Amino acid sequence: MKVFSAIAVGAISIAVLTPTYAEQVRHEPVQVIQPYISEEPAKVELGKQLFFDPRLSMSGIISCNTCHNLSYGGTDNLKTSIGHKWQAGPVNSPTVFNSSLQIAQFWDGRAVDLQEQAAGPIAANVEMAMPHSLAVDVIQSIPGYREQIAAIYGTDQVTLDHITDAIAEFEKTLVTPNSPFDQWLKGDDNAITAQQLAGYELFKSVGCVSCHFGEALGGKSFMKMGLVQPYESDSPAQGRFDVTGNEMDRFTFKVPTLRNVALTYPYFHDGAAETLEEATQVMGQLQLGRNFTEDELASLVAFMESLTGERPELTLPFLPESGPDTPRPDPFK
Amino acid sequence: MKVFSAIAVGAISIAVLTPTYAEQVRHEPVQVIQPYISEEPAKVELGKQLFFDPRLSMSGIISCNTCHNLSYGGTDNLKTSIGHKWQAGPVNSPTVFNSSLQIAQFWDGRAVDLQEQAAGPIAANVEMAMPHSLAVDVIQSIPGYREQIAAIYGTDQVTLDHITDAIAEFEKTLVTPNSPFDQWLKGDDNAITAQQLAGYELFKSVGCVSCHFGEALGGKSFMKMGLVQPYESDSPAQGRFDVTGNEMDRFTFKVPTLRNVALTYPYFHDGAAETLEEATQVMGQLQLGRNFTEDELASLVAFMESLTGERPELTLPFLPESGPDTPRPDPFK
Repeated sequence: MKVFSAIAVGAISIAVLTPTYAEQVRHEPVQVIQPYISEEPAKVELGKQLFFDPRLSMSGIISCNTCHNLSYGGTDNLKTSIGHKWQAGPVNSPTVFNSSLQIAQFWDGRAVDLQEQAAGPIAANVEMAMPHSLAVDVIQSIPGYREQIAAIYGTDQVTLDHITDAIAEFEKTLVTPNSPFDQWLKGDDNAITAQQLAGYELFKSVGCVSCHFGEALGGKSFMKMGLVQPYESDSPAQGRFDVTGNEMDRFTFKVPTLRNVALTYPYFHDGAAETLEEATQVMGQLQLGRNFTEDELASLVAFMESLTGERPELTLPFLPESGPDTPRPDPFK
Repeated sequence: MKVFSAIAVGAISIAVLTPTYAEQVRHEPVQVIQPYISEEPAKVELGKQLFFDPRLSMSGIISCNTCHNLSYGGTDNLKTSIGHKWQAGPVNSPTVFNSSLQIAQFWDGRAVDLQEQAAGPIAANVEMAMPHSLAVDVIQSIPGYREQIAAIYGTDQVTLDHITDAIAEFEKTLVTPNSPFDQWLKGDDNAITAQQLAGYELFKSVGCVSCHFGEALGGKSFMKMGLVQPYESDSPAQGRFDVTGNEMDRFTFKVPTLRNVALTYPYFHDGAAETLEEATQVMGQLQLGRNFTEDELASLVAFMESLTGERPELTLPFLPESGPDTPRPDPFK
């Protein structure tokens, strides 16, 4: 089977043949992930270098990849991240994989897209603690970056927008197609086990899917954490309320994606649930008023394990070396 | 030109054709770097995973690659490294590239080989702060590691030796052959500029080469830092004296390799010299009692820039996920 995907080039749509991935044949509230083929490979390469470059942090030791580790499931597998001067962040690091498939970025959705998101952690005092103006000066001072930016954006003057645009374009490539569940959606009855299928049926019938739907099984809506029972947490995060100041938005968070969820432990915005079993049971109780039996839990977890897709194979980038005038990192500033 | 390199398999030597690299034709005190072809690719792959795995640190955020960054020149480009709880290390991180070509490891040579070296930073309180027994428990508890270790070492019982042996085997692959200077050694007159050649002649005639010789241009001997004039430093490191307690060894350090030295700023065991120009001038004064002219400095630096070789292209490893019983990282322990 073959799929024709439309890629917009300027104002024209061109049909491109991507023969590796079959078409979805089952009509379900979950859709298969399509691979992302960038029209701008030079920008993707630049974005990859920036994603791995610790010089975007004041200390020179923290890169995007530190908390969104692409050798893991795009997170750091910590309760909350560790940032500049060993400060603990307020929330659990969400996965960067499939983040392009979501309506907004951050747990509270305060960034509209990946480009806006990328600017946040660079300057955040508890994360990379790098003033944007200094980040731009650093990149501007590195000949290898200046050359790439001139070739891509046609200017000698580096801006924050160049940096975040390139990182965002790289991040769009970080989708994970072809999970066993996607293969099942495409018609392969043997791609998942009977237990996984039973878990999916339960996932739909009890209502998990009302929030965890779409390509990313989540990421498409905001929802109150603790619909039926209140959620107790020592985290100061108040979700959307922190963005809107609207009382209705208190404890409302972006529904996290369940793609690769077996890799992204621990769970929830405060990282309080250590295992998928625990997170699933708590979700059942808080959001659906339901205690899952052991069998039900095992099926649901088995289903979620079928959502682990193919992470892109990446060549470790070589980072262009600093120039004579590159501001040096200062871990203790 | 073709080179036959001997690889020992058990007790038998087998000639292997490696057609990419020509033979050295110039007789010089510097030798070309040969690529390392491991007989144990599965061990190299395991070692690569461990090298990138932050779970070998108590915090879960520091890996070997944090301070020996393979996207840079195998260092962190900091004065001294930042470790557990944001502690500053006592000395500048030496490059892992070509470290297999050296007589001993660490600035003070306290480890006889790469395997012994690899154990050090894992347990060092200012680095990864991970008791060896806990490191072994973590790796033992991760099914994907257990399986690889069983396949390679034929045992279900993980030991520290397995971990460090695999890391060492991976590190042996981190050589950087085929620099412009190596191409010149192999007979290509056009591989380096006239200024670089003049720099090399000066490098030999003034005596730099008496310490910086061999494949790695260094790494083969220990030498007092401050032969002619004493070196002043705010670093507590006393070099070999810290290992032997012998007064003659005070301020005696392993001569660092000059391979890829353009990438491994800042310089010296205390990271006090920010540029290659500065480091070269200070070396001339302290070790040779000589002030280089501007022209001489420019030639020497140009020569050293010809020592940047080809770093191996590495695929970013996917790390096997933690098991249910894997001890979780604790950044604040």
